[in-house]
Amino acid sequence: MKRIFLLLSIAITFQISAQTDAENLKKIYDNSLTNGMSYKWLDYLSNDIGGRLSGSLNAEKAVEYTKSEFEKLGLDNVWLQPVMVPRWVRGAPEFAYIETSPGKTTSVNVCALGGSVATPSGGVKANLIEVATYKDLEALGEAKIKGKIVFINRPMQADLINTFDAYGGCSSERYSGAREAAKYGAVGVIVRSLNLRLDDYPHTGSMSYGDLPNSQRIPSAAISTNDAELLSGMLALDKNIKFYFSQSCKQLEDVLSYNVIGEITGSEFPNEIIVVGGHLDSWDLGDGSHDDGAGVVQSMDVLRLLKESGIRPKRTIRAVLFMNEENGLRGGRKYAEVAKNKGENHIFALESDSGGFTPRGFSFQSSEAMLAKVQSWRPLFKPYLIHYFEAGYSGADIGPLKNDNIVLAGLRPDSQRYFDHHHAANDTFEHVNKRELELGAASMTALIYLIDKYGTDTISNDSELKD
Amino acid sequence: MKRIFLLLSIAITFQISAQTDAENLKKIYDNSLTNGMSYKWLDYLSNDIGGRLSGSLNAEKAVEYTKSEFEKLGLDNVWLQPVMVPRWVRGAPEFAYIETSPGKTTSVNVCALGGSVATPSGGVKANLIEVATYKDLEALGEAKIKGKIVFINRPMQADLINTFDAYGGCSSERYSGAREAAKYGAVGVIVRSLNLRLDDYPHTGSMSYGDLPNSQRIPSAAISTNDAELLSGMLALDKNIKFYFSQSCKQLEDVLSYNVIGEITGSEFPNEIIVVGGHLDSWDLGDGSHDDGAGVVQSMDVLRLLKESGIRPKRTIRAVLFMNEENGLRGGRKYAEVAKNKGENHIFALESDSGGFTPRGFSFQSSEAMLAKVQSWRPLFKPYLIHYFEAGYSGADIGPLKNDNIVLAGLRPDSQRYFDHHHAANDTFEHVNKRELELGAASMTALIYLIDKYGTDTISNDSELKD
Repeated sequence: MKRIFLLLSIAITFQISAQTDAENLKKIYDNSLTNGMSYKWLDYLSNDIGGRLSGSLNAEKAVEYTKSEFEKLGLDNVWLQPVMVPRWVRGAPEFAYIETSPGKTTSVNVCALGGSVATPSGGVKANLIEVATYKDLEALGEAKIKGKIVFINRPMQADLINTFDAYGGCSSERYSGAREAAKYGAVGVIVRSLNLRLDDYPHTGSMSYGDLPNSQRIPSAAISTNDAELLSGMLALDKNIKFYFSQSCKQLEDVLSYNVIGEITGSEFPNEIIVVGGHLDSWDLGDGSHDDGAGVVQSMDVLRLLKESGIRPKRTIRAVLFMNEENGLRGGRKYAEVAKNKGENHIFALESDSGGFTPRGFSFQSSEAMLAKVQSWRPLFKPYLIHYFEAGYSGADIGPLKNDNIVLAGLRPDSQRYFDHHHAANDTFEHVNKRELELGAASMTALIYLIDKYGTDTISNDSELKD
Repeated sequence: MKRIFLLLSIAITFQISAQTDAENLKKIYDNSLTNGMSYKWLDYLSNDIGGRLSGSLNAEKAVEYTKSEFEKLGLDNVWLQPVMVPRWVRGAPEFAYIETSPGKTTSVNVCALGGSVATPSGGVKANLIEVATYKDLEALGEAKIKGKIVFINRPMQADLINTFDAYGGCSSERYSGAREAAKYGAVGVIVRSLNLRLDDYPHTGSMSYGDLPNSQRIPSAAISTNDAELLSGMLALDKNIKFYFSQSCKQLEDVLSYNVIGEITGSEFPNEIIVVGGHLDSWDLGDGSHDDGAGVVQSMDVLRLLKESGIRPKRTIRAVLFMNEENGLRGGRKYAEVAKNKGENHIFALESDSGGFTPRGFSFQSSEAMLAKVQSWRPLFKPYLIHYFEAGYSGADIGPLKNDNIVLAGLRPDSQRYFDHHHAANDTFEHVNKRELELGAASMTALIYLIDKYGTDTISNDSELKD
C-alpha cells in the first residue's frame, strides 16, 4: 500500500512537472513571437553597424552595442573578455576577367579569400588549369601547373539533404587550395564559391597557407557559381584562354578585441555554468545577418526570455558573444582557456551558428544516455514543430570547451537557403525572417530551461520525464 | 517448424520491401534535387506568363503551357477538362489616402478584394469607424456606421506556430466584412491585410456579398499592415479624419476555361485513381509563384519523378491542375462532379497549396487506422527530415472529392514566410528557393509511391511495414 502511494506520488510529481514545463515553454515561445527582441537587435547590428570583420571598427561598435544591450537587461553580470585577434583587410574591390584573345575580355565576379595575400599591384594574368579538387594537383605535377592559375571547380553536392554536409565536403578546397597549388608553382588560385545555387555572388571564407614561407604564398580568390560554370565552359572550348585577377588585401598586426558576456547567476548551483552563444564577428561582404548576427541576438534573447518568463535558473546561464570565429577562432579559444584557468565547471554549451532560419531541432555531442534524456523531452517540443534531436556537430566557438563532462549542442535550423547567403554580399538583414529568428531564440531558451532544470546527470530519474 | 519458416519468410519479405522502398525514395529525392523540373517550369509560369487570374489571357496561356509540358513527359493520357469560370478584373490601379484636414492627405497602399464592386468613378470619401472584427458591427448599429467606411483592423495572431491557424482565425473578416457592413449602411470597407509581417504590400483575396442585392453592395479593399497601423494610430488621435479610396474592378460574364490533367495508367488496378494536384489560377498582383505555381509544378513533377525513377505504379496516378481555386473553386467542383458521374473510384488525393517552402510533412483527412498506416512509414522519411504526419486539412480543390472511402492529404511546408507573400505583389519567383521546391516535389512523389504500393486498405498486413 505504501509502495502504491509512493509510486502515485512520483507519478503525480512528474505529471505536474511536465505540465509546468509545457506551460513554461508556451510562455517562452509566446513571448518570443509577440515581444521578442532578436529582430530589433539584429536590425541594429546589420543595418546600423554592418559587416563586423575581426579587428574592424564595426566589430568594435558591435562589442559596445551588445554590451550596452546586455546592461539594459538587468543581468547579474556583464563583462568584456579581452582577446587579441588577427586583422585582415580586403582593401580595394577585387577585379577579374577572362581573356579569350588579347583585348577581348569578359568580367567575372570574384572576391579574395580571407587570409589571402594580394596579387602584385598590376594583378596576375595567366593560363588556367581546372581541377575538381586540389587533391588532383599531385598527379598533374609541377610541369602542368607551374606559372598557371589553378581553378578548383568543385560544386557542392546537391543530393545531400543537410547542406552543411555538402559544405563539409568542399570547404577544404577553399581552405587548402592555395597552399597546395603553391607547392607546384601555381601563380594564383580561383575556387568555385561554396554555394548550392547558381548566381553571381562570390563567397569568401577563411583559407590558410599553413607553414608555407611568405615568399611562396600565392593569391587566392573565390569566383561566383555562375562564373565558375562560364569559365569551365570556356576552358572546354579553348584551353589557352587567360584569367586575370587583382586584389589588394593584407594581414595587419593583431589588435585587441573582446568576447562580450552576460550572465544570470544560478540560484542553487551558481558554479555549474551553462553557456549559450554565437559569434559577433562576421565577414565583410554582407552585414553578417545569418552568419552569425542571428546566433548573437538569439543568445542574448535567451537571457531576456528566461527573465521575462519568470524563470529563475538554478544554474548560471551565460550568453557569450564570441569574437573572431571566422578567421582565427581566437574568441572561442580564449574563453575556454580562461574557463580552464579559473577552474570553472561548464556543464553545457549551446551554439547557434547555422543561420536564422526556422529551427528544426538540435544536434548533440554527448553520451548516448544524455542524448536519450534530451530525446525524452521531445513531446514538450512537438507543438513547436521541433523534432530533430540527434548526435552531431555543435559549433566552432564552443568546441574548445570540450572535455569528458560537458555536453555540447548546436541549434539546427532549416539548412536549405543557408549557403545561398553564407559569406557573401547577400548575407543581409532582409533575408532573415522575423518569425523564424524568434522561433530559434525560443527553442534555444526552451532547451536551456530544461537543461538547467534537469541537469546533465543521466542517472537521475528526471530523465524519464514524459509529457 | 513450418510456422517459423512462414514467419521468417514474411519477415524477409518485409525487410526487402523496406529496403526497396528506402532505395526508391532515395532515387526520387536524388533525381528531384539534381535533375528536377519543378523550378524550370515555375520559372516559365511565373516569369514568362505571370499572374493567372481565372478567365484571364494568362490563365489561358498557363493551360496551354502545362498541357504541352505534360505531353512532353510521355504520359498515358493528357487532357483538358472544360469548366466555366467567373471573370473578375481589377481595372486601373487602386488609389487611397487618409485626409487629416481638407487638402492634407497621406497616401496608403490598398488593393480591391477579389469579387468586390468598384467605387463610384470619383471614389469614396468618408469618415471611418474602426472595429476589431465585423462581429462588432451589430453592437454598434446603423447609427454609428451609416455613411462611414468600416475599417476592420484584426491582426493575425503571432503566437500560433502554424501560420495557417492564424489565417483561419482572420479570413472571414476579409470574406464577409463588406456583406455585413453594408447591412448597417456603410459606404465601403477597408480590411487589414492578412499578413503577419509589417510591410507595405496590400493582400487581396476573395470576398462575397452573399445574397445581398446589387444595389446594396459596397466596395471593399485590403490595406497594407503598415498602413493599417498608421490609420489606426491616426484614428486614435482624431476620429474625424477621412479616408478616400477608388477602385474600378468588375465582375464580367463567366468564360470557358480548363482543368489540365495528365495521368499514368495503373498496371494492376487502373480503376483505382490517385490524384495529386495544385491550382493553376492565381491572384493577379504577383506572379503566383507560391500560391500556387509551386503546387502545380510539384504535381507535374510527381509524374515525371515516378517515371524517371523507374517506378511503374499499380494504380492510376493523375496529376490535376485545377482552375479557379481562388475565386470560385469551379475547377475542383467540376473535377469531382465528372468523377462522380463517371463512377470513378478515387482512393487518395494529395494537394500542394501551402507554398513552395521546405516540406515538413503531410496532414490527412482519413480514418485513424489509415493515419497509423501512414505514420508507420515515418522511418522511410526520416533521412529527408519529413516528420509531420498528423490529422488535418488537405486542400480546397480536392475537398469536393470527399466521401467515405477516399483519403485526402495536404503537403505541409514550413509556414513561417507564407503569409508574407500570399495574394500580394511579392508572391514572386525570387521568393521560391529551388531546393525547397524540389524537396516538396520529392516528398509528394514519395508519399504517392507508398500509397500506390500499399493502398489505402487498413486491414492488410502491409500497414505494419517498418524500416
